Amino acid sequence: MWGLSMSKILHGGRLGQMRIDVSKFTSSIEDDARLLNAVVAINKAHVVMLTEQEIIPKADGAALLDALEKASDLTLDSSMEDVHMAVEEAVLKEAGAEAGGNLHIAKSRNDQVATAIRIQLRNELLTLLRSLTHVQEHLVEVAEDHVETVILEYTHLQPAQPVTFAHYLLSYVDALERDAQRIQSAYTRVNQCPLGAGALATTSFPINRDRTAELLGFNGLVENSLDAVGSRDFIAETLADLTLIAVNLSRLAEDLIIWSSPDFGVVELPDEFTSTSSIMPQKKNPELLEVIRARASDILGNFVAATAAVKSLPSTYNLDFQEVTPKLWKSLDSVRASLDMLHKLMPKLKVTTTDLTNKALKSYVAATELANLLVRKYNVPFRSAHKIVGALVKSLIDAKLTFADATPQMLAKAAEDSAGVKLSVQAADITALADPLKLVEACNVKGGPAPVEIKRALCEREKQVFCTKSNISKMDKELEKAESKLDSIVQQLASKPRGNGTFKNYT
Amino acid sequence: MWGLSMSKILHGGRLGQMRIDVSKFTSSIEDDARLLNAVVAINKAHVVMLTEQEIIPKADGAALLDALEKASDLTLDSSMEDVHMAVEEAVLKEAGAEAGGNLHIAKSRNDQVATAIRIQLRNELLTLLRSLTHVQEHLVEVAEDHVETVILEYTHLQPAQPVTFAHYLLSYVDALERDAQRIQSAYTRVNQCPLGAGALATTSFPINRDRTAELLGFNGLVENSLDAVGSRDFIAETLADLTLIAVNLSRLAEDLIIWSSPDFGVVELPDEFTSTSSIMPQKKNPELLEVIRARASDILGNFVAATAAVKSLPSTYNLDFQEVTPKLWKSLDSVRASLDMLHKLMPKLKVTTTDLTNKALKSYVAATELANLLVRKYNVPFRSAHKIVGALVKSLIDAKLTFADATPQMLAKAAEDSAGVKLSVQAADITALADPLKLVEACNVKGGPAPVEIKRALCEREKQVFCTKSNISKMDKELEKAESKLDSIVQQLASKPRGNGTFKNYT
Amino acid sequence: MWGLSMSKILHGGRLGQMRIDVSKFTSSIEDDARLLNAVVAINKAHVVMLTEQEIIPKADGAALLDALEKASDLTLDSSMEDVHMAVEEAVLKEAGAEAGGNLHIAKSRNDQVATAIRIQLRNELLTLLRSLTHVQEHLVEVAEDHVETVILEYTHLQPAQPVTFAHYLLSYVDALERDAQRIQSAYTRVNQCPLGAGALATTSFPINRDRTAELLGFNGLVENSLDAVGSRDFIAETLADLTLIAVNLSRLAEDLIIWSSPDFGVVELPDEFTSTSSIMPQKKNPELLEVIRARASDILGNFVAATAAVKSLPSTYNLDFQEVTPKLWKSLDSVRASLDMLHKLMPKLKVTTTDLTNKALKSYVAATELANLLVRKYNVPFRSAHKIVGALVKSLIDAKLTFADATPQMLAKAAEDSAGVKLSVQAADITALADPLKLVEACNVKGGPAPVEIKRALCEREKQVFCTKSNISKMDKELEKAESKLDSIVQQLASKPRGNGTFKNYT
Amino acid sequence: MWGLSMSKILHGGRLGQMRIDVSKFTSSIEDDARLLNAVVAINKAHVVMLTEQEIIPKADGAALLDALEKASDLTLDSSMEDVHMAVEEAVLKEAGAEAGGNLHIAKSRNDQVATAIRIQLRNELLTLLRSLTHVQEHLVEVAEDHVETVILEYTHLQPAQPVTFAHYLLSYVDALERDAQRIQSAYTRVNQCPLGAGALATTSFPINRDRTAELLGFNGLVENSLDAVGSRDFIAETLADLTLIAVNLSRLAEDLIIWSSPDFGVVELPDEFTSTSSIMPQKKNPELLEVIRARASDILGNFVAATAAVKSLPSTYNLDFQEVTPKLWKSLDSVRASLDMLHKLMPKLKVTTTDLTNKALKSYVAATELANLLVRKYNVPFRSAHKIVGALVKSLIDAKLTFADATPQMLAKAAEDSAGVKLSVQAADITALADPLKLVEACNVKGGPAPVEIKRALCEREKQVFCTKSNISKMDKELEKAESKLDSIVQQLASKPRGNGTFKNYT
Repeated sequence: MWGLSMSKILHGGRLGQMRIDVSKFTSSIEDDARLLNAVVAINKAHVVMLTEQEIIPKADGAALLDALEKASDLTLDSSMEDVHMAVEEAVLKEAGAEAGGNLHIAKSRNDQVATAIRIQLRNELLTLLRSLTHVQEHLVEVAEDHVETVILEYTHLQPAQPVTFAHYLLSYVDALERDAQRIQSAYTRVNQCPLGAGALATTSFPINRDRTAELLGFNGLVENSLDAVGSRDFIAETLADLTLIAVNLSRLAEDLIIWSSPDFGVVELPDEFTSTSSIMPQKKNPELLEVIRARASDILGNFVAATAAVKSLPSTYNLDFQEVTPKLWKSLDSVRASLDMLHKLMPKLKVTTTDLTNKALKSYVAATELANLLVRKYNVPFRSAHKIVGALVKSLIDAKLTFADATPQMLAKAAEDSAGVKLSVQAADITALADPLKLVEACNVKGGPAPVEIKRALCEREKQVFCTKSNISKMDKELEKAESKLDSIVQQLASKPRGNGTFKNYT
Repeated sequence: MWGLSMSKILHGGRLGQMRIDVSKFTSSIEDDARLLNAVVAINKAHVVMLTEQEIIPKADGAALLDALEKASDLTLDSSMEDVHMAVEEAVLKEAGAEAGGNLHIAKSRNDQVATAIRIQLRNELLTLLRSLTHVQEHLVEVAEDHVETVILEYTHLQPAQPVTFAHYLLSYVDALERDAQRIQSAYTRVNQCPLGAGALATTSFPINRDRTAELLGFNGLVENSLDAVGSRDFIAETLADLTLIAVNLSRLAEDLIIWSSPDFGVVELPDEFTSTSSIMPQKKNPELLEVIRARASDILGNFVAATAAVKSLPSTYNLDFQEVTPKLWKSLDSVRASLDMLHKLMPKLKVTTTDLTNKALKSYVAATELANLLVRKYNVPFRSAHKIVGALVKSLIDAKLTFADATPQMLAKAAEDSAGVKLSVQAADITALADPLKLVEACNVKGGPAPVEIKRALCEREKQVFCTKSNISKMDKELEKAESKLDSIVQQLASKPRGNGTFKNYT
Repeated sequence: MWGLSMSKILHGGRLGQMRIDVSKFTSSIEDDARLLNAVVAINKAHVVMLTEQEIIPKADGAALLDALEKASDLTLDSSMEDVHMAVEEAVLKEAGAEAGGNLHIAKSRNDQVATAIRIQLRNELLTLLRSLTHVQEHLVEVAEDHVETVILEYTHLQPAQPVTFAHYLLSYVDALERDAQRIQSAYTRVNQCPLGAGALATTSFPINRDRTAELLGFNGLVENSLDAVGSRDFIAETLADLTLIAVNLSRLAEDLIIWSSPDFGVVELPDEFTSTSSIMPQKKNPELLEVIRARASDILGNFVAATAAVKSLPSTYNLDFQEVTPKLWKSLDSVRASLDMLHKLMPKLKVTTTDLTNKALKSYVAATELANLLVRKYNVPFRSAHKIVGALVKSLIDAKLTFADATPQMLAKAAEDSAGVKLSVQAADITALADPLKLVEACNVKGGPAPVEIKRALCEREKQVFCTKSNISKMDKELEKAESKLDSIVQQLASKPRGNGTFKNYT
Repeated sequence: MWGLSMSKILHGGRLGQMRIDVSKFTSSIEDDARLLNAVVAINKAHVVMLTEQEIIPKADGAALLDALEKASDLTLDSSMEDVHMAVEEAVLKEAGAEAGGNLHIAKSRNDQVATAIRIQLRNELLTLLRSLTHVQEHLVEVAEDHVETVILEYTHLQPAQPVTFAHYLLSYVDALERDAQRIQSAYTRVNQCPLGAGALATTSFPINRDRTAELLGFNGLVENSLDAVGSRDFIAETLADLTLIAVNLSRLAEDLIIWSSPDFGVVELPDEFTSTSSIMPQKKNPELLEVIRARASDILGNFVAATAAVKSLPSTYNLDFQEVTPKLWKSLDSVRASLDMLHKLMPKLKVTTTDLTNKALKSYVAATELANLLVRKYNVPFRSAHKIVGALVKSLIDAKLTFADATPQMLAKAAEDSAGVKLSVQAADITALADPLKLVEACNVKGGPAPVEIKRALCEREKQVFCTKSNISKMDKELEKAESKLDSIVQQLASKPRGNGTFKNYT
């Protein structure tokens, strides 16, 4: 009786056919493949609920579930409007217009797409978290080999003080830890279910929203129906968090690019992570790192695009949202690729330590410790000590000398000239500052670069990363549990049980 | 003995004097007033710790604390480099070069400024949270008066379905709730103490970082010293969260601007919140809302500025950070002002309900419910019902009729024409759909607009906002407690006890 | 003798092989297809010049040109590093290592890629200009049908004054005219040739840069070699110009979205340009316009991505540039698609004029003209007239009356109450303001909405668009001329002449 | 008769009083001081035209002009709504309600503010152009001292080839030249007059728009009245151009920051342009350059703020525009300050050339020239030469040798191993490549670094900058001429002639 032309489910009622070119222009199908599994799963959970609530007869429910099992194999192509209509068409074809025509009872594309994005996104957030912790683990591992590897650190790109390479690597373990925290916090807002909000006003059918949310493994509802279909702050929040990760990675990349420049010569990248010039045969370019550096701009641009698109939009659903979603996937892919590249690169970095002592002397990085010494041993107020040592450094530079050439006499003169005081320091006190490792070892307060402190910190970080990984596993398990539960219910209700649904395992 | 010229604490050692114009160009003093209280408090906590650790003698500690008490009254002016040097200069002047010269032992501007921003920011985040919950409370209050006030809602700015004004207001209570969650989550990362990281390598003095963190009311350390001075993701995160709030507010503003246009005529703004034209005497312009709408762009721009500045920066401290901080304060002020305006405006909004039934009939918003009815009562598959009702609406529009003119005969014809089926519907079923309130009442599932559901939701939201407010109070109390503890310790150690320090009460 | 393994032209010297995954991560091949024709043309021009300068023997030149003819048919795939190496590999294969090995004399990827982007971009700018003028032409055409079609215009989305639809359309003709000017201005900076800059220092071979620039149809050189390889401001400028176009289009889209909302009912979109809801059968959604509106954010995001990527980059070439180029193509495609959609839609728009007089009266848009009248005829100072008419409007609103109900008595009372003056206006003066077309006709100064002025303006705009089109044609011809000249020189020098090269006709 | 309360010109008619807090929130007065001179000039020109057109009596015109002369001394304070109402209030006070009440005939704040911004902006664009050319002049001057000063240049921050410092400086002269072109192009669109567009529909008074445009020194009209009040693309265009300048400056700053790091040691900043650390006495931080680098983000953020605010705004005037204008002034001030700092700094830079030859040998920057030599003299195809030299460099690095250690034997072995060919090169050919200046001199093609070519280029750049400066002067003169013409007309028409108006001389 209900003879529906498959190709135009939504047209032929209120509206005539849409022009092909307009339809292509407004279609989301290109980015929709990513949502197919989620959309099928949503429809299954919805049909299960409709059956349980006796909104549709059991037999219709069974027919719909059979058809949906097949729909997961659907190939999307550019002739389709979007994944939602593609799945419904496939179901209509398989289950017939009578049963199939009820798939969309009490449901709208508006709530369905919001739900599908969230299902896909929570999976990808877990994958991202795994990539993040993977990098952290590698940073910790590499750090363990460099607890006593001294490097000079810079502020304002001017030599500042010596630290260890492990200390440096740990600073990124901690930065990424905050990134992981933010993603976990975002996850709690992503993993809420908007399904059942309908177009914007829920429905007059007695649906059970808590049930579909549970079947799909959500932790709760995006309750208010206007909010449920009309909000995309969960996307903007994720894009912001991704921007922050990308900015952190860009800074790590910048450090390594500068440090692998022969003038700095702090690290060397392995050949297989670099490339040469088409014209200059001597070149060894850190292209990998340059791409990672540049990507932060891209991710930022995506946040701007998404936010500016939603800004000033009237409440509820507007098609502008459709332009926002692809930014999310692109940023996720891009950040994950950068993380994966870094975890491969970091263990292969070589740190150059030759000539370190000499370099330290030439760049006067012991100056702060000399000032501290004047305070501690010679009772000079710090601010005066700072000035005196500054004057000493100036005189050394003017005379083209290094810190190794500093003498008690020079220091005395500097004290006299700059602060008008007499100062007589023992030569041994100065020479003791020549060894950069000693300088590092002296900085043994919490969070400092001293090997003893680094060992403690490394130990703690290992535990912390382990903890995060457990947490990720737990979230993962919950999704898997929900998935197999939905699957088994579908198997019971369907007339022809088949394989298993997969709203979780994508990517 | 230690005769320091006050005006050039840091010069005369390594470097000569900086040019005045360069100094003005690189100075942060204009934005530093906001940090003065925090900087004084940090110095107090630092001196207390230095004394306790016996790094400086008790007497020196007392002299420093005395001088610091006075420094809170400092007036910053454009001749100063920054708040840090201004406070140190004031202390040097007061306590003399000997004691005063030790204020900066084991401390750098790099860790001090990061700590000061965090102290100020956590206070402002609490104020922001109060403003957010204030708006939520007012939305709930206004909603209570509008549980049965029906309005038409739109998707794509086309009439969709009727809901209640309370339902609409609640959608923003929920959106702001997520904003409040994000701010609370950010707070945990803001309220960590970088002090003691020094320039980047901590120090060789036996300082106690946990102690200063505790004295300043922090929940923990930004432990790794490179990370402590070199990270600003806590600022970027806050700016992103502020952008999301501002985007939410821009959408509320957009709704109200459109709805207060006479063509829509859904709400009316009180005179005292609007302005007129300089040339067109009839105008009543929603300027307040336009400014709120525009501000979201501003806040987004600040996020871009902050993120693009930090992107690709070498690790540790660079002066680029100094350009980032003012963006934070500007965005905070701007969002808070918008929130405060909205909580004043919302209770004064008038909702226009006259002519609602007529408008509902003219815009066919009962169409979805008619399709639902065909499914429920006449056994039509939803997809067919959708097409039939679409065809009915089209014929009504073509004949310039409203939904009130729909008859069983027209519906039968639409069914025949569009879906090739016979359909005989009772007239009463159609006329029953004329009352928008009835349509709303039918949508009584969780999160729906039905008055009964709204009442439940309002009750829950009240509790939720109360909860958030308790949480804010708790955080507030913790800061106050730390503050008075620091104050009493300072009183004990100082030689001339004075008023109380205030790292919390700013703004 | 020179047995080169094709697959690794650049490796096996300084560096070992790059890892496949790293190579994929850093490859630009996905976006390089767009540059293939340009790269082949560049190589041809380069070989011609090398031959003319006697840097390579004529026979080698011929062999290289033969090989290059074939290279245009190259299919790029993901195993290739980039289009530059792909072309060189193909040439090496075809011409052999001896002749082929000299293709890259005095040339680097750094200058080649900059040249290729400019060649492709100038073509696409001309295409964009054609799309822009096409929309302008359609706007003018549609305007010609609406010279007397009155619509109400708004400021702050509050009814302001009546104008004509033609006047509205002309405002976008003028906005797009500035956009066209900016693109033409950018074109002059794009159409400059960086070729010959080499890696960054030109070369010690006696190349002739002016000659290759001429052969490739450029207007001049990007002379300084550091600047030539290291600047991308021509991309950023184009992206900014595209953003401005997209913002203009977003505003046009916003107007039409609001005006096609039934509450406004100013325009109606044809069915084939709209879509319906999956659940609400009555809906007719302006999705096309929503996508155009959203795209402005996207284009803005691309500008941010490009600018933030280049910001703070060291001078000369960095691989970060590679991430910038795809933003350019994406923005160009997107803006052009929006323009093409709009020129199809605009002629199909229906303007609703029924009930206009009534609507005008209800929204008091004659108020300004009444104030003007008081000034002109009754000698009231404008500021007082403004206040009196404002008071009149207020009393009408309070009494739920329209402008049609205004009487001399009410005006007298408003004058008395608001300004304390006596005013006696003739009834006919008020009723004369009821006809919106009359109001429009009165505004006949330059740039005003009066039909007589619009006719003059339309005539001028037609000429102006014609002018721009001539200019585009001229630029187009110049490129074609250069192309066929290069082609004929290649034919002369090559040993086996073939088809014609095409650095111009892409897209 | 017309007793107007000064304090509420626009209220008391249609609307009651606006709340103080709302009024503060929506007020633009803080940023309006910058527009005062322009607003007064606009009103003068408008009154002159009203008098000439006999729209107001000569006596009234004289009274208004008298009052306007005084209004330029107005002090704006936060109790005022905006500069427009402040000027009108002042005039009303001075000229009385009768004459004063007609100041606003045929004029709206909508067209007035657009005109005022353009008047102020064109002045500031000329100032900006002067700053730009000033920097160019200094770059050329410094370059003249460094025609033979060799520095090593980098791509990907890896040593590439030697050039001269003059060559480097010239690359920025050229980049800034394009910036100057863009600003000059923008100027033509800025210097168009929107006055007379009224609120959006012009007016029914017989005003003469061409006359006011001429009196105010504009080159033409923003003709269409909707476009005139409703477009801000001239602001967005300027902000984009400023962003491009700021990005160029950020790259120059980045170069100098890296080069002044002791590891690079290419340049040294004078003391008075640097600062030291509060804790590390040896530090000499390039803070000035870091601020310039960071500012590019700020300027970009302002573009984003302005563009996102206007995106999707309904046509014509919305108050959102008011939030856009301050971004313009901030970006202009910021870029100009950076330019002014740079032109002071550049002549003081010291270039370090000691050890250059050694550094060149250690970084193998002669490799490209060696490959070229193999092509030229030994007939090796370039691609093979590239591989052979790459292999040579690799063997040198592995053996910790520099280019000075390369021998014909090593080259022969590299040829054999990497390309399977025999190669016998004369030792003298290799040693000839040891002198970096020789390498530079060889690159003497157009745009290359060779001193001979640089001298030619310098000479041309001098002429070019002179040309731009003449053009700026010409534009300046035109504004001055218009200004004094307006002034003398005002003097004739006013009853009490006074000083001279100044719409040009601001800043």
